[in-house]
Amino acid sequence: MNLIIDGGTILTMDKKGMIKDGAVVIEASDIVDIGKSNKIRHKYHGYEKLNAKGKIVIPGLINTHQHAAMSLLRGYADDFPLNVWLEKKIWPLERYMSGHDIFVGALLTAVESIMGGTTTINSMYHFMEEYNEAQAFQKIGIRAAVGHVCFSWRKKEDKNALHALVKNWHGNSKGLIRATVDPHAPYTVDPKYMKELREITNELNDKYASPRSPIIWHTHVAETEDEPEKIQQAFKMKVKNGVFDYLDSLGVLDKNTIAAHCVALTERDVQILKERKIKTSHNPISNLKLASGICPVPKLLKNKIIVSLGTDSPCSNNSADMFEVMKTTALLHKGVNKNPMLLPAEQILKMATLDGAKALSWEKEIGSIEIGKKADIVVVDFKKPHLTPLYYEPSHLVYSAKAADVETVIVNGKIIMENRELTTVNVEQVMQTAEKTKEKLLNKLG
Amino acid sequence: MNLIIDGGTILTMDKKGMIKDGAVVIEASDIVDIGKSNKIRHKYHGYEKLNAKGKIVIPGLINTHQHAAMSLLRGYADDFPLNVWLEKKIWPLERYMSGHDIFVGALLTAVESIMGGTTTINSMYHFMEEYNEAQAFQKIGIRAAVGHVCFSWRKKEDKNALHALVKNWHGNSKGLIRATVDPHAPYTVDPKYMKELREITNELNDKYASPRSPIIWHTHVAETEDEPEKIQQAFKMKVKNGVFDYLDSLGVLDKNTIAAHCVALTERDVQILKERKIKTSHNPISNLKLASGICPVPKLLKNKIIVSLGTDSPCSNNSADMFEVMKTTALLHKGVNKNPMLLPAEQILKMATLDGAKALSWEKEIGSIEIGKKADIVVVDFKKPHLTPLYYEPSHLVYSAKAADVETVIVNGKIIMENRELTTVNVEQVMQTAEKTKEKLLNKLG
Repeated sequence: MNLIIDGGTILTMDKKGMIKDGAVVIEASDIVDIGKSNKIRHKYHGYEKLNAKGKIVIPGLINTHQHAAMSLLRGYADDFPLNVWLEKKIWPLERYMSGHDIFVGALLTAVESIMGGTTTINSMYHFMEEYNEAQAFQKIGIRAAVGHVCFSWRKKEDKNALHALVKNWHGNSKGLIRATVDPHAPYTVDPKYMKELREITNELNDKYASPRSPIIWHTHVAETEDEPEKIQQAFKMKVKNGVFDYLDSLGVLDKNTIAAHCVALTERDVQILKERKIKTSHNPISNLKLASGICPVPKLLKNKIIVSLGTDSPCSNNSADMFEVMKTTALLHKGVNKNPMLLPAEQILKMATLDGAKALSWEKEIGSIEIGKKADIVVVDFKKPHLTPLYYEPSHLVYSAKAADVETVIVNGKIIMENRELTTVNVEQVMQTAEKTKEKLLNKLG
Repeated sequence: MNLIIDGGTILTMDKKGMIKDGAVVIEASDIVDIGKSNKIRHKYHGYEKLNAKGKIVIPGLINTHQHAAMSLLRGYADDFPLNVWLEKKIWPLERYMSGHDIFVGALLTAVESIMGGTTTINSMYHFMEEYNEAQAFQKIGIRAAVGHVCFSWRKKEDKNALHALVKNWHGNSKGLIRATVDPHAPYTVDPKYMKELREITNELNDKYASPRSPIIWHTHVAETEDEPEKIQQAFKMKVKNGVFDYLDSLGVLDKNTIAAHCVALTERDVQILKERKIKTSHNPISNLKLASGICPVPKLLKNKIIVSLGTDSPCSNNSADMFEVMKTTALLHKGVNKNPMLLPAEQILKMATLDGAKALSWEKEIGSIEIGKKADIVVVDFKKPHLTPLYYEPSHLVYSAKAADVETVIVNGKIIMENRELTTVNVEQVMQTAEKTKEKLLNKLG
């Protein structure tokens, strides 16, 4: 399909900056032209037209840390201490989740994500060949990095799952899906297995991927302060200078690694993040809700480390709402650092778009509205009382806009949502299936 | 009008707790019955029916700290240092705001508030007889405590304004509007004037109010850590043990006082808040955005001090969204106190409803769905992907629901919004007028 998004204010997130009365031209999956509407629109005849007058056009938001299937557990166990939450509530229920349940949960999260302007999800969960998150994302038409989470206690299953995931899905769904290798965390993956996963990843990259679209690592690191102790207890390893220092000593870190949370960092850890060009995913809502700590985002940015944004799972958030994450990020670091100039709106938008793409090593294709990139584009309706009056679009996007203001969503050149109606799936049905699946899960728990 | 809200899950916020398949019966402005639908609905024939099946019915949210007119400056000056923000940006533009502009801004905020489930606003601004916030609130049909903000530099105007405000508005708009006396802050109101305002308030209460609906004080206290210094510099007063200790030494505090922010408190301050039964308004989003500090909410609650919730002005937030404030409050104190059990969902809902009513000394009439109280009721649509599946309603209301999920809003027994359409005002027109007013303001600034 050829499409022209015409008349809106375009936030390109590249050097073109903001274009008022602009137009974006899409041919098939690609952005082929951008500029002032009156300069370029006459060049494209017979293109479908999406009237964006009075609206804001932004690159799709990129959620760099999710466990999409867990939407099925949203609101099941809030306000508990972390260990009770995980060990007594979440894990016992999760144990009953079938492949089909995972598919259903991922479908629900993908719907919620699209409806809130997220066009790319980086999701870590259990991969099964028959039913999995990738199928759900493909069905919705959302872009996703799909991982299989690896633990020491199931090495063999992990290896089979990783091979199946990469073979079947890396580059699949018209390039919308990429596979990732997801060591769960440094305290659940022993050092030997961690190195083995690095080797497996290298092999998989050689066999199935190109440098332009690598199979990356997606892992939790330094989510809580006691992580060094947990590693020491689990594997009798000394962790003296921080968790990244420990991982680096194993030789497993490279630039195609995204580390979620990074709450408890040593100076040495920050140094390693910088030297190894590790990418980070900041998940402020989850970190606050679980009382894990606060990632030193200003320090990371000062060190030119990529900080992208994530919601984390819908049961530690409890939304897949990147607008909420943007505002919370902007507020939190100002507040705790007592500096209202930190993380201004433009910076936050960059974290949620271009830096999200970089964090997934996907910046050649997504993260900005640029000629040659894939058309992952979100149209936000600004004709709302809470977005009135309008002084400066980036401020409104970060501090006032809501997920529900997203009107139309395009992924890979295809309209996935138009005027808040999804084009690829029956939302009512997705909700009904999710509710039924939850009931069945609770019944299994007894 | 007689109305029965039938079939929803009712969160009463009183000792009846949560009623599934419930019904609320309204006659004129009052709640006259509540219970299981199948037990009570047959008793009420010929009542209009609002079908709430699959929906959640809650008391209207109470926003206890606003400067409603300032929505006109929303997004005008973000990410600046506090003094630049206020002195170089906000105040210079505010100086050009006419009475009519104040009316327009308040109208816009009232619309946004209703659309997000807020049925009562406590707003501090400049009161003018010809045009003011009270008129805007009356037009929309929202409940409001409307103040006139007092400064040492305009005592005479203040006194005239206060008399006009109380005489014309206290108890007006069918009891929806109450007047308040608003000393701006301890560093802008000198001690002599502070005492005088206390005397004036007492006189106004004797003449125009009853103990059931008192004229309360609404003031900013301890918003930043340097407030004692500011008081010392301005008035050559020693402030050794905290700002509340200072105010108490003037003899001006009583239980009909709501103090916004309360960020920088001494132990003695907390003691005084408790002893004098001062009510507080917690504004986490504004405090974080302006980097003012974080109110020690858990400590206040431990001392049984009423903590209600406020958005603060739309230019330090930048929304009038109480759902956002609820979630931020729940997250922030868990995070900074490293305790995920702090401020559970039920507590947060109480702060946004019943404790909001108490904070405004209005709990005889609002804050819960109880027989004999006024019908300020909000119906929330839970059939949304981001609210699916459903385990526990309070969790979803605090952690997952959004302002845009509010479907129908009733104030004083009257439907003000039905299926997201306002019944009292043309929203499109309000937005257009606000946008034009902003343009004129900027032109005046040159």
